[in-house]
Amino acid sequence: MSAYVPLESVRKVAVLGTGTIGASWASWFLARGYDVVAWDPAEGWRPRLEAFVAHAVPQVAQIGAAREPAGTLTCVDKPEEAVSDADFVQENATERLEIKQALYRRIDAALPARTILATSTSGLILSDLVAGIASAPRFVVGHPFNPPHLIPLVEVVASKVTDPDAAAWAHAFYAHIGKHPIMLKKEVPGHLANRLQVAVWREAFNCLQDGLADAADIDAAIAKGPGLRYALYGPNMIFNMTGGRGGIRASVEQFGPAFEAWWATMQRTPVFDDALKSALVEGVDALMAGRTMEDLEAERDARLIALLKLLGEQDGDNAGKDGGNTR
Amino acid sequence: MSAYVPLESVRKVAVLGTGTIGASWASWFLARGYDVVAWDPAEGWRPRLEAFVAHAVPQVAQIGAAREPAGTLTCVDKPEEAVSDADFVQENATERLEIKQALYRRIDAALPARTILATSTSGLILSDLVAGIASAPRFVVGHPFNPPHLIPLVEVVASKVTDPDAAAWAHAFYAHIGKHPIMLKKEVPGHLANRLQVAVWREAFNCLQDGLADAADIDAAIAKGPGLRYALYGPNMIFNMTGGRGGIRASVEQFGPAFEAWWATMQRTPVFDDALKSALVEGVDALMAGRTMEDLEAERDARLIALLKLLGEQDGDNAGKDGGNTR
Repeated sequence: MSAYVPLESVRKVAVLGTGTIGASWASWFLARGYDVVAWDPAEGWRPRLEAFVAHAVPQVAQIGAAREPAGTLTCVDKPEEAVSDADFVQENATERLEIKQALYRRIDAALPARTILATSTSGLILSDLVAGIASAPRFVVGHPFNPPHLIPLVEVVASKVTDPDAAAWAHAFYAHIGKHPIMLKKEVPGHLANRLQVAVWREAFNCLQDGLADAADIDAAIAKGPGLRYALYGPNMIFNMTGGRGGIRASVEQFGPAFEAWWATMQRTPVFDDALKSALVEGVDALMAGRTMEDLEAERDARLIALLKLLGEQDGDNAGKDGGNTR
Repeated sequence: MSAYVPLESVRKVAVLGTGTIGASWASWFLARGYDVVAWDPAEGWRPRLEAFVAHAVPQVAQIGAAREPAGTLTCVDKPEEAVSDADFVQENATERLEIKQALYRRIDAALPARTILATSTSGLILSDLVAGIASAPRFVVGHPFNPPHLIPLVEVVASKVTDPDAAAWAHAFYAHIGKHPIMLKKEVPGHLANRLQVAVWREAFNCLQDGLADAADIDAAIAKGPGLRYALYGPNMIFNMTGGRGGIRASVEQFGPAFEAWWATMQRTPVFDDALKSALVEGVDALMAGRTMEDLEAERDARLIALLKLLGEQDGDNAGKDGGNTR
C-alpha cells in the first residue's frame, strides 16, 4: 500500500457529482475534518450543495462522528481541477455508463499517481467503465447507502484491472474515516447489499400483487418484526439464533427442509408492468397519509440519527471512534 | 364479534406448550396483567417456565409495556383443564402436524364457545390441522416473532373454516394487548414475514457459497446498511424513498429496469447440502468469537430492549400504550 497516500496524510478529498449521494458524501468528509473540492455539471449546483452540507454536517455531529475543526468546501468548474491535487476521489456521477466513461477520460491524466478514485455506483460494473483509462488500476467501487453521511456501510469492489493494493487502501481508508467497509471478492450486479435488498423487494412485490396483505401490513411485516433484528444482526447470525441454544448446527438441521419447501413456492420474479406500478403507487400513497417527501426524509433522518446514536453507545463501532483527519 | 368474549372482559389466557415461544408468550400475557394457565407435555417444564417468566416479565417492564399488577401463573396437568375456562388460548405445541392435530382433538370439547384459539405455528397451514375439529371456526394463526415478549409483530391468518369474526377478534385482541398484528388474506407457506426473511437467506446463502464475501461481511451488508432502515420502515416505504423527492413514481421508473436485471441473476435456490451446512457452521463459529449462545441471547435481548424503548419513545406504537387487562 506504500504506493498510495498514507491514510494519515489524506487532507483533500475530491467529490465529483453532488446530487443526493455526492452531497451526502461531501458532508461526511467535511464533518470528519477533510477539505472537500467539489464539482458537478448541473445548473445551480453550488447553492444546493452548500444548503445540503449546512444541514447534514451537524447531523454527523449528532451521531458523535464529527471531528473539529470541520474541513472547508471549495467548488470548482472542472473535474480535472477537482482531482488534480486530491488525496482521494469519491465519484458520484449520474448512473449511466457513457456519462461515467466520459468523466473518467476527462480526469484520467489529472489524477495524481498516489490517489485512489472510488465510484459510488450501485448498478454498474466497474470493469465495464474503465476501458482505455490509464489510471484504472487506482479505480475501485466504494458504494455507500443513502444517506452516506449517516449509514455506515460501504461496499468496496475491485475491477478486473484494479491493483489489489488500491482496493485494500480504499477499504482501510473507509474504516479509518469511521465507515464500516466490506470487501467483495467478485464483481456482480448490485454488489452484495442491494442483492439482499432486491431479494426482499422481489417477495414483497409478489405478496402485494397476490393480495396476500396490503402495503401497510407488508411494511409492518418487516419493520415491526424481522427488521428490528436486522438493525442488530445480519442473516447468518440471525439464522444461528433461530435454532435456539443449539445454534447454527441445530438451525441447519431443523429449518433447512422448511426453507427449501418455502423457496420452492418463491420462484416467481415480479415484472414492473402497469399493474405492479399501480399497486405500488396506490399502496405507498396510502402509507404517506398526506406527508410530503420532505417530511418523510426529515423523519427518516431523525430516526436514523437516534438509532445510530443508540447503536454507537452499545457497541462503539458505528459512529467511528477513531480515524479522521487529525491535523 | 359479539359471539366472542369482549376484549375488555378477557382475564385468563391459556398457554399450551411452554418451550421458547410459549414461555415468552406467557411472559407477555402476565406482564400485561392477564392470569395465565399453562400446560406442557415435557418433563420438568414447570421450573423452566417459572425461571423464564421471572427473567422475561421484567424485560417487558423495561420497554414500558407492563401493566400493574402482573397476572398470576398457574401450571396444570392437562391441556383440556388449561382451556376449560380460558378467555383466549395461545397454542405453541411442537411444530409437527400430528402433534398439533392430537392436541386439538384432546381440547376440542373443552374449549369454551366464546373463546378463540390462536396457534403460533410458523410453518404449518392451519386448514391442514383442523380437520374434524368441531371448534375449528374459532381457530386462527397468531404467529409471533422470537422473542414474542419483545418483538411486536403478530401475523393473523384464518383457515378455510375460520369464522371471519374470530379472525377479526384475534387481530383486535393482539392490538388491544400492545402487539402489532397484521391480517393476511390467504394461507401460504411461511405466512408473510418468514417469506421475506427466507428471501434474504436465499440470496445471503448463495453469496456465501459463491464466495462473494465472508459471513461477517455478509452480515454487515445488512446490519450496517439496509438493516438500519428495516428497523424503521418496510420495503414499500423504503422503495418510495429510493426515488428521492420524486417518491414512488420516480422509483418505479428509475429502478424497475435495474431490479429486473438483478433478479434475472438471482434465480438460483440454495440446497442445504454438506457444503452449505459447512460454510454456515464455519462462518457462524467465526462470528461467535468465543461467545456462548447464552451470551448472544442476553446481548440480543439487551439490544432489542434498548431499540424498542427508543422506537416506542419516537412513535409510541411499539410498546403498546393502551390496552391490556384493566381490572
